[in-house]
Amino acid sequence: MSGATSRLWTEVDFDKQGKQVGYLRLPHSTTRSAYGTIAIPISVIANGDGPSVLLMAGIHGDEYEAQIALCRLIRELEPEHVQGRIIVMPATNLPAAMAGTRVSPIDDLNLNRCFPGDPDGRPTEQIAYYIDSVLLPLCDVWLDLHSGGGSLAYVPFVSVHRFADEALNARNLAALKSFGSPYGIVWAFFDEPRMAKGCAERHGLLYLGSELGGGGSVNPEGVRLAYEGSLRTLRHVNALSPAAPFRVPEPVPTRLMEVGGRDYFVYAPAPGLFEPVRALTDTVERGARLGFVHFVDDPSRAPIAVELGHEGMIMCMRHPGRVERGDCLAHVVTDLSPTES
Amino acid sequence: MSGATSRLWTEVDFDKQGKQVGYLRLPHSTTRSAYGTIAIPISVIANGDGPSVLLMAGIHGDEYEAQIALCRLIRELEPEHVQGRIIVMPATNLPAAMAGTRVSPIDDLNLNRCFPGDPDGRPTEQIAYYIDSVLLPLCDVWLDLHSGGGSLAYVPFVSVHRFADEALNARNLAALKSFGSPYGIVWAFFDEPRMAKGCAERHGLLYLGSELGGGGSVNPEGVRLAYEGSLRTLRHVNALSPAAPFRVPEPVPTRLMEVGGRDYFVYAPAPGLFEPVRALTDTVERGARLGFVHFVDDPSRAPIAVELGHEGMIMCMRHPGRVERGDCLAHVVTDLSPTES
Amino acid sequence: MSGATSRLWTEVDFDKQGKQVGYLRLPHSTTRSAYGTIAIPISVIANGDGPSVLLMAGIHGDEYEAQIALCRLIRELEPEHVQGRIIVMPATNLPAAMAGTRVSPIDDLNLNRCFPGDPDGRPTEQIAYYIDSVLLPLCDVWLDLHSGGGSLAYVPFVSVHRFADEALNARNLAALKSFGSPYGIVWAFFDEPRMAKGCAERHGLLYLGSELGGGGSVNPEGVRLAYEGSLRTLRHVNALSPAAPFRVPEPVPTRLMEVGGRDYFVYAPAPGLFEPVRALTDTVERGARLGFVHFVDDPSRAPIAVELGHEGMIMCMRHPGRVERGDCLAHVVTDLSPTES
Amino acid sequence: MSGATSRLWTEVDFDKQGKQVGYLRLPHSTTRSAYGTIAIPISVIANGDGPSVLLMAGIHGDEYEAQIALCRLIRELEPEHVQGRIIVMPATNLPAAMAGTRVSPIDDLNLNRCFPGDPDGRPTEQIAYYIDSVLLPLCDVWLDLHSGGGSLAYVPFVSVHRFADEALNARNLAALKSFGSPYGIVWAFFDEPRMAKGCAERHGLLYLGSELGGGGSVNPEGVRLAYEGSLRTLRHVNALSPAAPFRVPEPVPTRLMEVGGRDYFVYAPAPGLFEPVRALTDTVERGARLGFVHFVDDPSRAPIAVELGHEGMIMCMRHPGRVERGDCLAHVVTDLSPTES
Amino acid sequence: MSGATSRLWTEVDFDKQGKQVGYLRLPHSTTRSAYGTIAIPISVIANGDGPSVLLMAGIHGDEYEAQIALCRLIRELEPEHVQGRIIVMPATNLPAAMAGTRVSPIDDLNLNRCFPGDPDGRPTEQIAYYIDSVLLPLCDVWLDLHSGGGSLAYVPFVSVHRFADEALNARNLAALKSFGSPYGIVWAFFDEPRMAKGCAERHGLLYLGSELGGGGSVNPEGVRLAYEGSLRTLRHVNALSPAAPFRVPEPVPTRLMEVGGRDYFVYAPAPGLFEPVRALTDTVERGARLGFVHFVDDPSRAPIAVELGHEGMIMCMRHPGRVERGDCLAHVVTDLSPTES
Amino acid sequence: MSGATSRLWTEVDFDKQGKQVGYLRLPHSTTRSAYGTIAIPISVIANGDGPSVLLMAGIHGDEYEAQIALCRLIRELEPEHVQGRIIVMPATNLPAAMAGTRVSPIDDLNLNRCFPGDPDGRPTEQIAYYIDSVLLPLCDVWLDLHSGGGSLAYVPFVSVHRFADEALNARNLAALKSFGSPYGIVWAFFDEPRMAKGCAERHGLLYLGSELGGGGSVNPEGVRLAYEGSLRTLRHVNALSPAAPFRVPEPVPTRLMEVGGRDYFVYAPAPGLFEPVRALTDTVERGARLGFVHFVDDPSRAPIAVELGHEGMIMCMRHPGRVERGDCLAHVVTDLSPTES
Repeated sequence: MSGATSRLWTEVDFDKQGKQVGYLRLPHSTTRSAYGTIAIPISVIANGDGPSVLLMAGIHGDEYEAQIALCRLIRELEPEHVQGRIIVMPATNLPAAMAGTRVSPIDDLNLNRCFPGDPDGRPTEQIAYYIDSVLLPLCDVWLDLHSGGGSLAYVPFVSVHRFADEALNARNLAALKSFGSPYGIVWAFFDEPRMAKGCAERHGLLYLGSELGGGGSVNPEGVRLAYEGSLRTLRHVNALSPAAPFRVPEPVPTRLMEVGGRDYFVYAPAPGLFEPVRALTDTVERGARLGFVHFVDDPSRAPIAVELGHEGMIMCMRHPGRVERGDCLAHVVTDLSPTES
Repeated sequence: MSGATSRLWTEVDFDKQGKQVGYLRLPHSTTRSAYGTIAIPISVIANGDGPSVLLMAGIHGDEYEAQIALCRLIRELEPEHVQGRIIVMPATNLPAAMAGTRVSPIDDLNLNRCFPGDPDGRPTEQIAYYIDSVLLPLCDVWLDLHSGGGSLAYVPFVSVHRFADEALNARNLAALKSFGSPYGIVWAFFDEPRMAKGCAERHGLLYLGSELGGGGSVNPEGVRLAYEGSLRTLRHVNALSPAAPFRVPEPVPTRLMEVGGRDYFVYAPAPGLFEPVRALTDTVERGARLGFVHFVDDPSRAPIAVELGHEGMIMCMRHPGRVERGDCLAHVVTDLSPTES
Repeated sequence: MSGATSRLWTEVDFDKQGKQVGYLRLPHSTTRSAYGTIAIPISVIANGDGPSVLLMAGIHGDEYEAQIALCRLIRELEPEHVQGRIIVMPATNLPAAMAGTRVSPIDDLNLNRCFPGDPDGRPTEQIAYYIDSVLLPLCDVWLDLHSGGGSLAYVPFVSVHRFADEALNARNLAALKSFGSPYGIVWAFFDEPRMAKGCAERHGLLYLGSELGGGGSVNPEGVRLAYEGSLRTLRHVNALSPAAPFRVPEPVPTRLMEVGGRDYFVYAPAPGLFEPVRALTDTVERGARLGFVHFVDDPSRAPIAVELGHEGMIMCMRHPGRVERGDCLAHVVTDLSPTES
Repeated sequence: MSGATSRLWTEVDFDKQGKQVGYLRLPHSTTRSAYGTIAIPISVIANGDGPSVLLMAGIHGDEYEAQIALCRLIRELEPEHVQGRIIVMPATNLPAAMAGTRVSPIDDLNLNRCFPGDPDGRPTEQIAYYIDSVLLPLCDVWLDLHSGGGSLAYVPFVSVHRFADEALNARNLAALKSFGSPYGIVWAFFDEPRMAKGCAERHGLLYLGSELGGGGSVNPEGVRLAYEGSLRTLRHVNALSPAAPFRVPEPVPTRLMEVGGRDYFVYAPAPGLFEPVRALTDTVERGARLGFVHFVDDPSRAPIAVELGHEGMIMCMRHPGRVERGDCLAHVVTDLSPTES
Repeated sequence: MSGATSRLWTEVDFDKQGKQVGYLRLPHSTTRSAYGTIAIPISVIANGDGPSVLLMAGIHGDEYEAQIALCRLIRELEPEHVQGRIIVMPATNLPAAMAGTRVSPIDDLNLNRCFPGDPDGRPTEQIAYYIDSVLLPLCDVWLDLHSGGGSLAYVPFVSVHRFADEALNARNLAALKSFGSPYGIVWAFFDEPRMAKGCAERHGLLYLGSELGGGGSVNPEGVRLAYEGSLRTLRHVNALSPAAPFRVPEPVPTRLMEVGGRDYFVYAPAPGLFEPVRALTDTVERGARLGFVHFVDDPSRAPIAVELGHEGMIMCMRHPGRVERGDCLAHVVTDLSPTES
Repeated sequence: MSGATSRLWTEVDFDKQGKQVGYLRLPHSTTRSAYGTIAIPISVIANGDGPSVLLMAGIHGDEYEAQIALCRLIRELEPEHVQGRIIVMPATNLPAAMAGTRVSPIDDLNLNRCFPGDPDGRPTEQIAYYIDSVLLPLCDVWLDLHSGGGSLAYVPFVSVHRFADEALNARNLAALKSFGSPYGIVWAFFDEPRMAKGCAERHGLLYLGSELGGGGSVNPEGVRLAYEGSLRTLRHVNALSPAAPFRVPEPVPTRLMEVGGRDYFVYAPAPGLFEPVRALTDTVERGARLGFVHFVDDPSRAPIAVELGHEGMIMCMRHPGRVERGDCLAHVVTDLSPTES
């Protein structure tokens, strides 16, 4: 696959100074549109020297907070505010964003399980390939802003992954703190090489993630955090002109926590209706009861209790009531050891 | 249609003393099951003289709190706890409850827009007909417990409808207070004759509704309120034996409010992504800004502001971020005049 | 609805002597065909005086044996073979027959739950209305030939319904015997007024049904029985010229049995995988074990045993392995009392 | 059903002077929107005395020409141009219009086979009921502008139906001529009481139809004819102020033709691929060859020739190549006898 | 792909002594479950030294007999019965098994056309990869038990494939005879490298297949043969303790037959309704008539006869009546030459 | 993948003299047909020495003209008419051809974006692989006949691609002229390596394409051009015997034009309803208005004008009225410089 060229094209010129708002064009030849393209919004605001920063939302279509915040930034950012180049993609997997779904309605694929992508693949794989082969080589910094989406409720936070390069880890952690989120997470465990973070590590980018809400709604606090945190981190990396007139509060201190292993997650033991008895931010012991799976089609059947496999603070819970066996019901986080923070 | 007989049958005997847990059988002859039935759970606990009470949940499949609470009551209630007869249907539109959807996945119908039903109709219409023609004539009291479901987030409350019979209205209001919910709503406006409340009025039943949560999740506080409130109201109507060992807290005082007209509701002015700037229980003026509709596929386009058409407290907000033009985004309530309370 | 006229039309002239093979035209205006019609095959072979007989197959699209036998009769029957008029519809719910489904793929309706139909209804309801309002008034005799279809395996038989008119019952029973099936069934129980048999009774027609196989396959013995039995009964009702050169074996004696009540049927107690331990034509006691429902997603869970609620011979069993709660798993028949036979 | 009230409501006030552009609100309570409404655009431009005229497009969603022309009229018409009241509905079955389909994607119903509608029915039936029970009683004149839609190609024309009231027929014919279309059709045959024309006749309205293109495309000539013809007929019925500054060409003379019977239509004799050998506006003899049905999956099989059942001019042909047995392939028209014109 | 690691994980420890019943976890991140897993049941019963045997059912979800038999073995087998290790997967493609379909409802893939799989592929490809890369290296013996499924009716048999390694072929044939099926088949022809058998050959495993019924039903005789045959072969390979208390009948002698080439199979010559005139186990000549394809939508059209292309015994016939051109209608087998048996 | 073998097989023998009409068999094992094959029609007419020519239609199922013409050639061509070998595939992506869709209904893939295919891929990828690995190595000349299909209307033409091999380009251009189409196009721009033309170039074949109509209808002129042009080019390449009795008109002179770059294409700027104001064959300036996108759900909103990005003659326009942002609305062509022609 190496050497192959992405099929996506764009009227946007990444090397041009000034502000452009346009579209990436993903050719998608279908019965309803033989020469059709999927038009994915993108903006470039460039001004002289400085870092190249990619601000991205909508890798998952049902994660809304940063989609709104980045559209606002596109409308507000002008070339004179910028040092270097800011590339903004507010609705990266556009078909999913328009459908409000995690996966694309076109190919049923999860963009964040498709990296590094495939230039000859289905649309979502082609988007991944374009990001990895065209956009990331242009950039120094990548803010890849997520939320819990329709199936997960999250305490808002910003996050880093633990990479092999410790110097990069330190830079990431400093950038994380600049974002100004009350919680910051280190993903010390994530057994999946097809995620965006793998590309970030390979390209050696400063890379932040986040979860800014969830449950399928727009969380206004998450929108605010996405907007202000992005501006704070843009300033931290010197991508904003000192004269840029954005007034955002100073960052709050960030409590650093980590996801340390597979046993931080709890899964549904049977299909049914899940009733939690704990709430987000509760601190729990190993073995504590999380809730029950109920069987409303068979009311005589006793509910099945669900217990936590690791102590910690509940950072994430499943949002929809109906569950299938194997659905993730919650995960906890634990405080990062002070030596790491 | 009058005189026609429901096709549903059941092995449960409504005239038998003691406790039965069984199924209503809705014949549904399909390609995958020529002589198939839809098995809708039902329980009858009967003991001597007293009122007949129908406890119902799951008219909408994605309203979960009372589904769980009523299953618990089925497991806990024994004949010696009862005076009269308690009929419990925890998952009334069973196919919708198993799918976690408001409308039935079989016929795409909303059971609460099908009353008084049709014995020759589609499955959901047949359920409505059975309730209206078989169950309601057996009963004196009907607790029809709802939640907001997947598309609406609600402040929990119990409710009555304003009927023509003032004596019945007074009895309903007394029963509402017995339930012990912090909020109680009078639906003074509801322009829809095909809802369950119309049957209740026609049959002259004591009738309570509720909204106990929403957003597609199970709200544990709503489960508790459904369970305890049902027991409190069962006691209020003398359907529980004084010796029944259910210990539930005394009811809290109920703040009585009303939905007074169509202008209490706000609708999306365009398709897009809705960001609220107000929250549930906020008190707002007429004309106050509720939020914005954003266009993430066209980030240069300015968001459209949404304003409230009536003052009041925000009782209900749309849960999912994506909206179509015409979706209800919120409704307010106002305090009931003291003379009515 | 009375007085309304069916929308179906046909180039076939029911009053014409000779043989015609053509189509009923059901107007069905859709996006893909604004002035489209559904073309339902029909043949009329008429010759002088005699009874009018309607031979019908394919009320359910997945019941194949008589569809094949009646197509053969259309090809073979010539006017000189006939006394009176024979109308043949080999694929009555044509869209279902082409899809191999019980219900129509267009409207998801079961034609045998739509009688007497609706001239303004969905396509399947319009077919029912045409049969009831146009075809049945033309006829004296109706052979409505079914099989088990995809979801049921049946021991082949011909059947009558117990009507209010005892003289008609006697004529039906005589016709049943003329058909020459090893088994004959009296449906003494069928709690469903929307079936074809209700129209037959209202129009006072000699009316036979059948089940000639099932499981979704074509049973060659059932095809033969449909073909030979139809010819024998046509001869019995004097619709065949004595000179007609059809040589079919003499009928075998028919063992008369009945379906006496709802407890002749057994239903699945839970969703899962059904393993029978009995076979068709087994004679069983009340309470005998029919089989088990297994849970292959949860192999530690013990299977649930299923027992028969009435003694008798197993006439029908569910064909597909996967079941939902409420699916019919089997029904038995018992010998008709000799006084009735 | 008589006496029942439509569930649709609107913020538009039909009795108000001036210009309003708003929405009819059809309550549609679904899983994705419990209190949702379908927002159907409507405009009212009223000014003093004069006729009430209903201009309607989009009864079928894939008939585009008049949808565009009526939107233009909404933008251009101001109260000072009007005498009386002009009500404009450019996308009457809005869900179908947005999907580009003849039938509604919500309920699969054809609005022009649903009249007079049902206030308790599916969304499309509710739209029909609102038109018949609310809008038509307000009006004197109804222009119900259609095109061929995705499945039919039409020579553009304006049309009347032959009603029982000869005075009305004369007024309709005069209005037809005012529209200025090169062809005018009298539907002397239409065996379907559920169409809009039945309501027009019952309400005694001046009523014009049209077919302004087809094949699923927008025909710019049809858009022009819809726009100019509507203005000419508005002027003909005195609904336009003499001072209104709309400059449209004088009408061309209209050749009057009729559809005289079922044999004017030709249907596909088998499923396959239809190749026409005649074109729109060809004049043909009875028995002339229209084309062939080909079998590309079985190339050895000879194509089946299709012949016309009536002489005349080909006014309509099927657009899509693939056909099912029973699809209408074409219809002809014949010149109206001079005594009628 | 070499070197990549399967994404599946499990709480089951393959190196642990004793009995475990748990799940393989296939991460499947979807809109309804962002961190979801598909929970595929697996059991390991290990005790000291001896062979490692993989018992597998449900590679195709609609092949039920061995799914039931292996669940029973999971419940009955205890460590003290075992010598070595027995790994049991009763529902290998779990989503297909729960849907009763050959292919997975998630990705429409046939697991037995996906080997050796792909760790980055769709769920079914990931299951294949886990089997090939994790399970097979742990094992010496693989019983991969199939049935005909919904589309094929099979005379029950156990089978081997003809591999390149003659010593392995001999061991497979001996194991086949130990199973105790009346028929044993050698697949001398199978032009498809993506099947499980290819992995077995590459890993040098003793490998048996089977077909134990079909048509979409559960065949109780097939369940018995799967259960008893598995125990007999477990004993044959010394995986059962001599003291294990399973009493199964001695094996019957096995008639060895083969599928020798592509011409052993017969395909539908046209779409229609297939009526067989031969039955399973019939012995036929080359050119013998198998049945007819009928056209019930066009009853005048003569049926098309279907003939067999090779002599032999009919081992397999298509089950559903409706066919498309190219569907396999039957295949024959011939006796294996005595030198091979 | 190199070295892998196509799974497709056929009873047709490409090395045999004489005429064969049969099927390619694509094994497709599904729930409804475990051993099913997709039967793709193919014909071979061979006679002694001469070129091998592949005539192909139906790479896209909704492009009908050449499907019909090639079926006619299959019926008419006899061995004595041929010099060498003519292979005809009239419905190459058979499932798409039967559905009338550009992409296959089985795998949603566009065959002309799948080359060189994959022997282990989805059905459409397997067809591509068979063409590239089996058919093309047999051939010297390839006529790959397309039309616009359902979404595009095209002025009919025949075309070549600009390959690296100038000698081949010259041979292609000569063949193009032999076809006798009024227009001939050189595709100087096509940024897509997965199309059929890439295989043609790699195999060094004389290769012609075409667009013979479109809009989803059968264009009789396009059928005629496909038939006559194919015969003229067969004669040009000496694949027809001089004595072959096909009388086709001499070719008309061909006006040679080219598609020179991405800016020859115009895309929809927003979702809505597209009204063109230009027609096919119009010659336009850069910046000329092509039409408007209208918003019929929001009639107050002004339409968006669409302008052309390059001068030229309009060769192609979008057919369906409804558009999504990014749909191609038209493309132009410009005259080829005389030195190239």
